[in-house]
Amino acid sequence: MSASTLSASDQIAAWRGDTPGCAHRNHLNNAGAALMPQPVIDAITDHVKLESEIGGYEAADARTAEIASGYDALAEIIGARAENVAVVGSATAGFVQSLSSFDFAPGDVIVTTHCDYTSNQIQYLALSARLGVEIVHADDLPEGGVDPQSVREIVARRHPRLVAVTWIPTNSGLVQDVEGVGAVCDAAGVPYIVDACQAVGQIPIDVGRLRCDYLSATARKFLRGPRGIGFMFASDRALARGDHPLFVDMRGARWVDAGKYEVVPTARRYEDWEFPYALVLGQGAAARYALEVGVETAQTRAWGLAEQLRDAFGALPGARVLDRGASRCAIVTVTFDGRHADPIVRALKERGINTVSSLREYGIYDFDAKHVQSAVRLSPHYYNTEAEVDAAIAALKEILA
Amino acid sequence: MSASTLSASDQIAAWRGDTPGCAHRNHLNNAGAALMPQPVIDAITDHVKLESEIGGYEAADARTAEIASGYDALAEIIGARAENVAVVGSATAGFVQSLSSFDFAPGDVIVTTHCDYTSNQIQYLALSARLGVEIVHADDLPEGGVDPQSVREIVARRHPRLVAVTWIPTNSGLVQDVEGVGAVCDAAGVPYIVDACQAVGQIPIDVGRLRCDYLSATARKFLRGPRGIGFMFASDRALARGDHPLFVDMRGARWVDAGKYEVVPTARRYEDWEFPYALVLGQGAAARYALEVGVETAQTRAWGLAEQLRDAFGALPGARVLDRGASRCAIVTVTFDGRHADPIVRALKERGINTVSSLREYGIYDFDAKHVQSAVRLSPHYYNTEAEVDAAIAALKEILA
Repeated sequence: MSASTLSASDQIAAWRGDTPGCAHRNHLNNAGAALMPQPVIDAITDHVKLESEIGGYEAADARTAEIASGYDALAEIIGARAENVAVVGSATAGFVQSLSSFDFAPGDVIVTTHCDYTSNQIQYLALSARLGVEIVHADDLPEGGVDPQSVREIVARRHPRLVAVTWIPTNSGLVQDVEGVGAVCDAAGVPYIVDACQAVGQIPIDVGRLRCDYLSATARKFLRGPRGIGFMFASDRALARGDHPLFVDMRGARWVDAGKYEVVPTARRYEDWEFPYALVLGQGAAARYALEVGVETAQTRAWGLAEQLRDAFGALPGARVLDRGASRCAIVTVTFDGRHADPIVRALKERGINTVSSLREYGIYDFDAKHVQSAVRLSPHYYNTEAEVDAAIAALKEILA
Repeated sequence: MSASTLSASDQIAAWRGDTPGCAHRNHLNNAGAALMPQPVIDAITDHVKLESEIGGYEAADARTAEIASGYDALAEIIGARAENVAVVGSATAGFVQSLSSFDFAPGDVIVTTHCDYTSNQIQYLALSARLGVEIVHADDLPEGGVDPQSVREIVARRHPRLVAVTWIPTNSGLVQDVEGVGAVCDAAGVPYIVDACQAVGQIPIDVGRLRCDYLSATARKFLRGPRGIGFMFASDRALARGDHPLFVDMRGARWVDAGKYEVVPTARRYEDWEFPYALVLGQGAAARYALEVGVETAQTRAWGLAEQLRDAFGALPGARVLDRGASRCAIVTVTFDGRHADPIVRALKERGINTVSSLREYGIYDFDAKHVQSAVRLSPHYYNTEAEVDAAIAALKEILA
């Protein structure tokens, strides 16, 4: 299955052969959850079987080595060491664990962007309403996406407690300049959190280059892992600072004496004791599979298919591609003559084509700036084909006719 | 399979026939994770298969009715309405969500017990260290377990922000008087959180009788569900008060305008948007199975098997049963001549008998009061047999000889 020994078309056929869902659906919803390859499915179901036969704790004990190797693979995916990786329920869960490392006082400032993820925006508002934290949204570049220079100016003026940026929002193909913002934060010594939920698996990640304190990611999207599992990175700097989640539990800390707890030295301090080990193993298998395919290979193909979609929409009367930014990823958002996305997505689904509606409430700043209420979101991945993209375009033409 | 049509032995055989693990292990670690019955295993693996074929989001959409019916079953298990139930990653996750509803100020008091769960004790210490919350442990009754009268006195004197009690600790067969404490809290108007992690599935639960604001529970233990999933209850009183988790996300709240979020009316405000739906469905199946068996039936059998173990240890020279309290549940803890539990548990495991070591750091107050460092924990459930209990005792005699 290695790239050097297979032709391009044989390679795509091999990827699709590993993916049972390719026989059932034209799946252009990889930004929702990608189709899992067989090694991921097997890792989950084999472990559930083992648990059912010998017991849940006993099965986890029996798979200690495989669980550890999953951390190695996740670490490799983001250019980190396994000691800096924690497994969490989702990217949002990892983001929350990171946020909860900070004890905010009224007047503390968090700097973020207009394109940060919905849940993060809601959490900022909750911190504002409940703890008196002030949320400052940095300006966008003219072409879209946060302007690192604006972050620099706000950081100098407001001395924020932290800066948090969503690399790729859920609601468009925008790729924010997280490296540029990282340089600003590093220079100013401000803690920096990156939400890489939609990035992992479609962009090569090197946390050293991002210079982030924390990064959160999920399994189910472009990494092609299971639903309901994710991981996070905590930097040596954050660990040395003694950061730990507010609600640290017996995985993250030992109860050493009646009045005393000791936080563990590694990023495991961000983990909960209880784990869905079947999904933990599935996520590890997904990371290994992604390394085998190569994230750069995945990016080149997936972004190419996304451009194929955008080119076709560019030639389609009434279609308006909404993705902004200097670089655009494997998420394509489009409106058609101002029609609501829901019936279009349903009509595609009836034809076996998986897409989703993206709604204003998922990205209020962005949707309002674009003056739209909804968009059809199509998100191909490397295992999709040019023919599937053509089929989706043909179906849309038929639906819109 | 109904109780009225099967003899007692046929019924046990039917339960065991539903449980693949019974053919492989003498599983006396139900307080760790019980063996899953076939309907739970099927719910998980069927959903993973569906996800792999049609996509993760698409599979969840296709199973809307089954997911909703899981909430109904969980609600029935605790005597609540589905609107008051939220699905979370574990009992600890539910406990944290409940705790995070309160914005603590320095000097605020939390009243708890000496037998609260390890992770909860660590979280109390973290709240103390980071936010200046004062933790007060109510006195125990002479026979063990929290004294509601002590809670009453502390509540009157210290006006705590909340009272939190673990119903059954992980490290002994103790059953705390959560109903007695509930009456105290209700009379004083103090919010009350019950951790029912080890209770659900082995004790009939009626949240109305407990008069609790919150209750957290897990799937994997006496409910016989999957690992890595649990649920919580939030009372009408808590919801009406406007309580919501500090890090509420887009499941729990809608982002309605740039500067505004609206919390959802039901207990779903405590949920994360992302779910491991295969496990959610597995947990629902476990709740339905438990209702079919009957929690009272489960309790009678499991507690009877636990008493059989304690009686046998009472007759075993050098054995010391550590379980205290007016009523003792399906968790049996025992030491043998002060020997460390680990090698004994390993020797049992080599004989196909699943138990675990319970260590001082899982219950410092309790272990120190008992002057022991470790204990062997055996936790039968209703599907275990008297013969399995006898086999465990015989094996222990051999190991200790």
